[in-house]
Amino acid sequence: MKPRTPDFPGKVREIFQRAAFIDHLGIRLKDLGEGWCESVLTVVPGHLQQNGFVHAGVQATMADHTAGGAAATLSAEGELVLTVEFKINFLRPARGEHLRCRAVVLRQGRTLHVAESEVYAQRDGNEKLVAKAMVTLALVPAATIRSDDGRET
Amino acid sequence: MKPRTPDFPGKVREIFQRAAFIDHLGIRLKDLGEGWCESVLTVVPGHLQQNGFVHAGVQATMADHTAGGAAATLSAEGELVLTVEFKINFLRPARGEHLRCRAVVLRQGRTLHVAESEVYAQRDGNEKLVAKAMVTLALVPAATIRSDDGRET
Amino acid sequence: MKPRTPDFPGKVREIFQRAAFIDHLGIRLKDLGEGWCESVLTVVPGHLQQNGFVHAGVQATMADHTAGGAAATLSAEGELVLTVEFKINFLRPARGEHLRCRAVVLRQGRTLHVAESEVYAQRDGNEKLVAKAMVTLALVPAATIRSDDGRET
Amino acid sequence: MKPRTPDFPGKVREIFQRAAFIDHLGIRLKDLGEGWCESVLTVVPGHLQQNGFVHAGVQATMADHTAGGAAATLSAEGELVLTVEFKINFLRPARGEHLRCRAVVLRQGRTLHVAESEVYAQRDGNEKLVAKAMVTLALVPAATIRSDDGRET
Repeated sequence: MKPRTPDFPGKVREIFQRAAFIDHLGIRLKDLGEGWCESVLTVVPGHLQQNGFVHAGVQATMADHTAGGAAATLSAEGELVLTVEFKINFLRPARGEHLRCRAVVLRQGRTLHVAESEVYAQRDGNEKLVAKAMVTLALVPAATIRSDDGRET
Repeated sequence: MKPRTPDFPGKVREIFQRAAFIDHLGIRLKDLGEGWCESVLTVVPGHLQQNGFVHAGVQATMADHTAGGAAATLSAEGELVLTVEFKINFLRPARGEHLRCRAVVLRQGRTLHVAESEVYAQRDGNEKLVAKAMVTLALVPAATIRSDDGRET
Repeated sequence: MKPRTPDFPGKVREIFQRAAFIDHLGIRLKDLGEGWCESVLTVVPGHLQQNGFVHAGVQATMADHTAGGAAATLSAEGELVLTVEFKINFLRPARGEHLRCRAVVLRQGRTLHVAESEVYAQRDGNEKLVAKAMVTLALVPAATIRSDDGRET
Repeated sequence: MKPRTPDFPGKVREIFQRAAFIDHLGIRLKDLGEGWCESVLTVVPGHLQQNGFVHAGVQATMADHTAGGAAATLSAEGELVLTVEFKINFLRPARGEHLRCRAVVLRQGRTLHVAESEVYAQRDGNEKLVAKAMVTLALVPAATIRSDDGRET
């Protein structure tokens, strides 16, 4: 096993702060520990789809990015975390004032981690599971990201 | 088979125009036909993740929503199209001035359609496949969407 | 909600006994309750792939079928349970004398259930999670299965 | 890029011949080329599920293994191909005398390939697409497969 980033909380904070799309959506890091990460989002009209529910894409973004945060807590210095693929089931229409996402690493490997993310909608003080994702993430040395065609996994 | 919405192009246009999140991201309907749909997006800094690539969540949103458009071309009047689940593989880092997504219905059923979406990044006049998704969509009579806990599939 | 099959244990037993492929592989129903199901398999050489691990297809079959058992515990009389799609992550190579699979329904709907299945390998008295799946299942009135082209979901 | 196995057809043949489960099911290699692979199966009663269709697990096994064959055509000498995860949609009930599967590599990387597999059922001289899968595969140096807990991806 490679030595982990000693300041993994700082690394995860950076993954949330420096991702323009995440900032733009309003997704914020809530908490983290070794192998897990939580994020929150205050729902605004710009997050909705045509029937008034939170768009599947908002939930998917939150599930994916929070899984990336969880994987980063188990990464080495200088390693980037990139999503290889994910799958998400939408269990019920998402409505509410806030979304909360909790991601947990199910399996850590040398170059691949697998995490699962649960997305909850909070409405009138109740919280319901609205989506669940399984995410495969690659740990890539920053130096191997080439400028021309990208990831070398 | 139920009779299809005669004005399916109008229905798909509405799905794009009335989805606040899609409008907010700048994803626009490009073209459509029976069983397929295309969308485009001009990439702006707010779409990026922490390493300068288009965020996986932007690509996933485009793949999901365009699949919804394709499924809606094969839906009956008064039926809503809701995403049950999707899976997406990110094939290479997405960079470029524009994204284009093409979704095609692979299988149409009475209550479920399955579509696949390809997302391409356009850069310096070249286009590369950056992501591919498979999407399961439910056709739901509008009347069965309950206000309390949502989708009744 | 439709009334559930009163004898759901009998229905699940039938799903295991009457599926020739499951019998052929040696997958046996272990236990069940409302919303969950467990199965076991004694590993034999015919289950392996070219490197001596249990083949991904054996694990996938077990994850899928046990999810079907779990979904059937929440089905109405005369409804068949058919797999719409599943996704499975192989977390570590599967070796051991036995596999055990536990499936739990995450979400029950009127026509669709979503379950997750965990597959464990038992070796020298230890048990490890080797695969995890998310499965979407359709509840289909037996009468709508047409002989010509099948499922009418 | 690493140099590819010069005798990649021989490598793929071995992947089919030495996998006991594949032999046991009767899945045979049909043809292959750089980046693709085809297999066939003669359906027997032992492949069916409780409603008389070919079991989802048989289709999934064929989709997974044939994707492994396609990935192996683009692997280096001494590299094993292991399935990281796959997702499969069952598009219609599978019936017929034979199944045919065609897998194509969508993306080749240094340590990960992504392939898609289509499964067709042949019945009375007609062929129908019954399932489609997306498969993520790891290329692993044989030496890194440890005996204790397996894959070191």
